[in-house]
Amino acid sequence: MDCRELEQFLYEHIPLSKAIGIQVQESNTERVVLSAPLNPNINHHSTVFGGSASAVAILAAWALLYIRLRQEGLHNRLVIQKNTMVYERPIADRFVASSTVGDPSAWQKFQEMFRRKHRARISITVTLQCNGERVAEMNGDFVALADPVS
Amino acid sequence: MDCRELEQFLYEHIPLSKAIGIQVQESNTERVVLSAPLNPNINHHSTVFGGSASAVAILAAWALLYIRLRQEGLHNRLVIQKNTMVYERPIADRFVASSTVGDPSAWQKFQEMFRRKHRARISITVTLQCNGERVAEMNGDFVALADPVS
Repeated sequence: MDCRELEQFLYEHIPLSKAIGIQVQESNTERVVLSAPLNPNINHHSTVFGGSASAVAILAAWALLYIRLRQEGLHNRLVIQKNTMVYERPIADRFVASSTVGDPSAWQKFQEMFRRKHRARISITVTLQCNGERVAEMNGDFVALADPVS
Repeated sequence: MDCRELEQFLYEHIPLSKAIGIQVQESNTERVVLSAPLNPNINHHSTVFGGSASAVAILAAWALLYIRLRQEGLHNRLVIQKNTMVYERPIADRFVASSTVGDPSAWQKFQEMFRRKHRARISITVTLQCNGERVAEMNGDFVALADPVS
C-alpha cells in the first residue's frame, strides 16, 4: 500500500483524517509516517490541540498494523483497546508521527497467536516530532480479530 | 460559562471541535458534558474513530478545568501532560463525554499548589457513553501554569 493509496483510504473511510489535513509521507511494513499542519489543528494557545496530535498518532499506529497484516494475508478487524499519550513539548508547527513495531519478537508472537486463536494483541509505539525535535510519544494496544467479511 | 459560550469558544479557538461536530450539553464547575455525532467521526468499521473519541474526551476534561479555574479567578495556561484512554466497546452512534473532578481534596490541593507555586497538576476522569451504555474512559493529567497574559 503506497502513500497515495493509504491517504485515499484514510480520507474516504475516516473523514476526520481529511479535516486534520493528514499527509502520508511513508507507508511500508517497517513504518508509517504521517504529517499534519498546524492550522486545522490549532488551539487557543496557537499550538497543536492534544486531541489532534493523539488522533494522528493513533492513525499512524493503526496504519502500520493494517499494512503488515494485509501483507501477511491475515484478514482481520483491527480494534484499538488502549492508548497512552505523553505530551512532552508544545507543538507549534507542522508535525510528524512515525510508528514502529519496536520488538520483532512481539510481531512474531502476535502473528502466531492470531493464526492459532484468531485473536491477538500488540503494542505499537508512535513518536511525534516537530521541526526535528521530539514532542510527544504514544503507546497504543491494538487487538486483531479474525473477520471473514473484510 | 454557559453551554453556548463554551461551544462558541471551542469552535472559534479549536477548529477541529467544529469538524468533530461537538455540542455542549452541560457546562458548569461540577461537570462538562460534550456530545458528538457518528458521521463526521466514522471509521471504516462504521463506528467512531478512536482519535475522535479521544479528542472529545480531552476537550471535556480541559473545559472543566478551564471553567473551574476561571471561576476561581486563577489566570493560567492549561497544558495537557498525559492521557490514557481505554476503549471498552465500539461506539456505533452519537456519543457523550462527561468529565468530573472525582476527588474534592485533589482540587483543593491543586488550587493551593497553584496559588503557592504558580504551577500545579491535576488528573481528570472522563467517561464516554453511547445510548446509555459506557463505552470508554479517559484519564488526563493537566498542568496549570501561571500566565499573566491570559
